[in-house]
Amino acid sequence: MFRITHKDKHTNARVGLLETPHGVIETPEFMPVGTQATVKALSNEELKYCGVQIILGNTYHLYLRPGMDVIKDAGGLHRFMSWDRPILTDSGGFQIFSLATLMKVKDEGVSFNSHIDGSRHFLTPEDIIRLQYELGSDIMMVLDECLHYPCPKDRAERSLELTNDWARRSKQSFEQLKVKTSSLLFGIVQGSTYPDLRKKSAEELVEIGFDGYAIGGLSVGEPKELMYEMMESSVKYLPENKPHYAMGIGMPQDFFKAIEMGVDMFDCVVPTRNGRNGAAYTNEGRVIVRNGKYSKDLRPLSESCDCVVCKNYSRSYIRHLFNTQEILGLRLNSLHNVYFYVNLLKRIREAIKKGRFSGLKREF
Amino acid sequence: MFRITHKDKHTNARVGLLETPHGVIETPEFMPVGTQATVKALSNEELKYCGVQIILGNTYHLYLRPGMDVIKDAGGLHRFMSWDRPILTDSGGFQIFSLATLMKVKDEGVSFNSHIDGSRHFLTPEDIIRLQYELGSDIMMVLDECLHYPCPKDRAERSLELTNDWARRSKQSFEQLKVKTSSLLFGIVQGSTYPDLRKKSAEELVEIGFDGYAIGGLSVGEPKELMYEMMESSVKYLPENKPHYAMGIGMPQDFFKAIEMGVDMFDCVVPTRNGRNGAAYTNEGRVIVRNGKYSKDLRPLSESCDCVVCKNYSRSYIRHLFNTQEILGLRLNSLHNVYFYVNLLKRIREAIKKGRFSGLKREF
Repeated sequence: MFRITHKDKHTNARVGLLETPHGVIETPEFMPVGTQATVKALSNEELKYCGVQIILGNTYHLYLRPGMDVIKDAGGLHRFMSWDRPILTDSGGFQIFSLATLMKVKDEGVSFNSHIDGSRHFLTPEDIIRLQYELGSDIMMVLDECLHYPCPKDRAERSLELTNDWARRSKQSFEQLKVKTSSLLFGIVQGSTYPDLRKKSAEELVEIGFDGYAIGGLSVGEPKELMYEMMESSVKYLPENKPHYAMGIGMPQDFFKAIEMGVDMFDCVVPTRNGRNGAAYTNEGRVIVRNGKYSKDLRPLSESCDCVVCKNYSRSYIRHLFNTQEILGLRLNSLHNVYFYVNLLKRIREAIKKGRFSGLKREF
Repeated sequence: MFRITHKDKHTNARVGLLETPHGVIETPEFMPVGTQATVKALSNEELKYCGVQIILGNTYHLYLRPGMDVIKDAGGLHRFMSWDRPILTDSGGFQIFSLATLMKVKDEGVSFNSHIDGSRHFLTPEDIIRLQYELGSDIMMVLDECLHYPCPKDRAERSLELTNDWARRSKQSFEQLKVKTSSLLFGIVQGSTYPDLRKKSAEELVEIGFDGYAIGGLSVGEPKELMYEMMESSVKYLPENKPHYAMGIGMPQDFFKAIEMGVDMFDCVVPTRNGRNGAAYTNEGRVIVRNGKYSKDLRPLSESCDCVVCKNYSRSYIRHLFNTQEILGLRLNSLHNVYFYVNLLKRIREAIKKGRFSGLKREF
């Protein structure tokens, strides 16, 4: 299902092809976040224009709204939202542990109150697999316990036991579905900020055996250097011939560091969330387009960008749209950012293929 | 500048071609409202996809934000917002009389406080022409006094004197610009709900002489029947060979009644504003897509519509987007509505050309 087509000579960067029920994804790739069955402010046509190969959905959010019956009736998430390319679904663990209230973790599973209407729910790792199967997810994620930073070691250790037990049960549950689906299942390395726990986590997951491995618990408030350290402490114990996914990463500069460690997949709300808040990402750095200094700036968001936003609209106009709270402002900024992210990854893939990954990194 | 190409045999409905600096508009036409240099929630590409020939801008709003210096720097409103088709600019009279505070009308002009920052402004009818010239408007509107409903007759009478005096001054001011611009100037018939005042207003405007004539002061709270009566009491005194524009109209059913009186142009916030509030307009009536009964409805907004929204998305999905306050919901509903409006007018033009206007009206 995953085939490495090119390797960088000087680092662990590689280009690969990941096969899913809705098509093949070339990695390394950035996956825009479509939590509630829509990548915020953007249309499917715009995502395709940007070259997006795969988007994320969120099991916790979709389970609560619109609910599984609605999505099943529509024939699954792809048909519900009219998106025919691959979808990776987050297990929703992170949201259960951050958004839901009165959350209670037991060995069996997790009970919580909906952040929307306070209704009580109980979900097991097996339920989470079943829900993702019902969504028609191309890449499913196991339920894991998400820890805050900082986290005492004994707490992280106990949590890891639970998370890996859940991973084992998720795999068993997934195996029973295998006759019905060609979806993939990814495990998630945890272990907080402790290299030995990261190692233990990775090794146990590899023993269980997954189609791909995610690195979780990163970018939760820890210093950047520690984040990279934990990423490295996780990736190095993962099989080279499986895809590696750094969850919740990142900022444009993060991609180079992670990819040279051998990371293949990324997701992050930055291009859309920060886009809606007025931040545009460019080769020349970040442009906070709502700033007053852009009020008469007739240049595009980025002079080196060839996206439809940069071809047609000025900073002055986009600033005006933000200033007057017009929806088109959020749209244009989000569109530019997703285009920039997806095309940055495309440039990285091209560079790896041509043996000039380090050159591109230096330029950037 | 205005040439009637087809006339209906049984009513005053007609098809015409109106020439403007940015191109020819075929009438009758609906003009989406782009108050702040954007048709809310939609992109220029989407407007063109809908077949929009001309949009509105608002002088009052644009004068306050981003301000004339910003738009002049960009080379006018078209270049500022990257829209290369015609733009009609409202004088902003309606907004000065409804949004601004501490408004004071003198013979000379009107002083008011900005609804945004409370700053004090004074604008004359001549200023309003100059501002629209600076915007690069294709069709300019004169400044008029806008009355509430109901309005005592003596008040309406005094107001009419002022409004027509302003119209005269606007025309003079416009004449001085004529060497520099091929824009058009429209007068606005007022007279509240009094047929004799409507007649007086229309006749005086015709004497001054404009490129087109708008009917103002409609749809300000009066009963529908009275609105149609006043529309008729205005249109019948206007020259047949000039375009007639019913300001702030309308609902889909209004078009047929107005067009058979000889109205050629319409603008209204309904398709976008009501679209953002969850109402979709269709051949089959209005669909309030946020309603719970649509939660599993897999039909498109309209089964007889061939727009990109109806081709790709279900009521169930759009309802979910509204329910979760996702921007794409506003976008899809607004896009469908503008497509529906613009294509309804297109169907009406085709029907007039083929001598079956009354047939289409009955069907609708």
